[in-house]
Amino acid sequence: MNFNEKLAKIVRKNNSLLCVGLDVDEDKMPKHLFAKSKDPFYDFNKSIIDSSKDLVCAYKINMAFYEVLGPEGFELLEKTVNYIPKDIVVILDGKRNDIGNTARKYAQSLFETYNADAVTINPYLGIDGVKPFLEYKNKCSFILCRTSNSSAGDFQDVKSNNIPLYQTVTHKIKDWNSYGNCGAVVGATYPGELEIIRGILGEDIPILIPGIGAQGGDVEKTVKYGTNKKGEIAIIVSSRSIIYTGKDENFAEKARVTAESLKNEINKYR
Amino acid sequence: MNFNEKLAKIVRKNNSLLCVGLDVDEDKMPKHLFAKSKDPFYDFNKSIIDSSKDLVCAYKINMAFYEVLGPEGFELLEKTVNYIPKDIVVILDGKRNDIGNTARKYAQSLFETYNADAVTINPYLGIDGVKPFLEYKNKCSFILCRTSNSSAGDFQDVKSNNIPLYQTVTHKIKDWNSYGNCGAVVGATYPGELEIIRGILGEDIPILIPGIGAQGGDVEKTVKYGTNKKGEIAIIVSSRSIIYTGKDENFAEKARVTAESLKNEINKYR
Repeated sequence: MNFNEKLAKIVRKNNSLLCVGLDVDEDKMPKHLFAKSKDPFYDFNKSIIDSSKDLVCAYKINMAFYEVLGPEGFELLEKTVNYIPKDIVVILDGKRNDIGNTARKYAQSLFETYNADAVTINPYLGIDGVKPFLEYKNKCSFILCRTSNSSAGDFQDVKSNNIPLYQTVTHKIKDWNSYGNCGAVVGATYPGELEIIRGILGEDIPILIPGIGAQGGDVEKTVKYGTNKKGEIAIIVSSRSIIYTGKDENFAEKARVTAESLKNEINKYR
Repeated sequence: MNFNEKLAKIVRKNNSLLCVGLDVDEDKMPKHLFAKSKDPFYDFNKSIIDSSKDLVCAYKINMAFYEVLGPEGFELLEKTVNYIPKDIVVILDGKRNDIGNTARKYAQSLFETYNADAVTINPYLGIDGVKPFLEYKNKCSFILCRTSNSSAGDFQDVKSNNIPLYQTVTHKIKDWNSYGNCGAVVGATYPGELEIIRGILGEDIPILIPGIGAQGGDVEKTVKYGTNKKGEIAIIVSSRSIIYTGKDENFAEKARVTAESLKNEINKYR
């Protein structure tokens, strides 16, 4: 089963385009976990997964939040990936990029060592840095196209013959999609750009869309512009706004309430 | 002591601009290590460091080669950083990039958890992704400008008003250097671009230059165009061509011979 099939299956099973971001952060996590648990980060992730696994199509793990914990952070990442039910998409968000010889090691790391279904990669080095990822034909490589942050335009809006760089990247993603395993990352905070990018990519290339929630992206526009005609192949991410809804013993139930409400809001516009 | 002072001190002490890249790779390492040693990767790194520490200004650790080993790879990275003599510059080459909230975690990871003197970062997200690194005023952030690979030009050569993107990035690096802690990454495989970039950056911003050795960059042009008028602030990296010179018990001595020869060749042109 290739990535797009796996995604379609779980989107239909859970009737959801929602992806929950598991960005562990001691400063934001419930304090009682650090007093009571021997493995507070893993217990936190397990509780969030248990309480949301019927509401999501994917979990996204941003590697920065794990790397900062030291070598144990990668053990946590490994355990967390293994804990996620096998029919749910696992996205390792590392925005990796390097020359071919080294990109091959990152691809091996994310897809083999850590068993991701999908990854995020940065396109600045061109096809050399992307190709080793695309050799994993049943996986998906989401390439940064238009990022969700406020300075995204510093370089992504630089225009050549009136075409901004993010659109040049989008056209390349379409070119690179010969195995049907490319995706794009586009921030919900830029709905106009999202509409243009979906127009270029067409009906079959998935878009990973962060920026809903804490970053302020609009749900209606995200769904309208990000999905295809079937209302699919958009993966809409929310992290902090869901997993840190509650600060107390009932944090997982509170996260579930927020996740369910966002899932339903997304579905309203599909 | 800030980064540029630390760099100047070791460059003068060892009379060297050479940086050895510690890219551990089981396929290329001497076979006997895996038969005899309990910790072959660490033993390899220790031997290479022992045999080259008076010949270099820096060691560069490309994180991909460690990440692929699983959680133990980060223990290896940590031990390797700790083993490097304190007066030698440690560069953690991860080409990290993310939105501000997350870039802060990467900066904390690389500079605090793993104690780097310098890091590499990818500029595609603009200043938001760079700023959290620059808050570490005594460290150095080398920003990818012109990469060494053959498809570097896919996006880096996209021209706006006749100015290619890599030059736009170079000008931004100069703008972002208000704490004097920015650097640029420029591949030795593009000597023309290196000359232009050094011209824009001036006399005080260090350039990290991979691409000598296995990738085929020219040493004379690298030194001529990469250094400032004092023949300094260029860090010239070689990895595979040095550390995998030998395949047998005497691999560290053989690596030393290659490193010394490259160090001397570099100095001939300074």
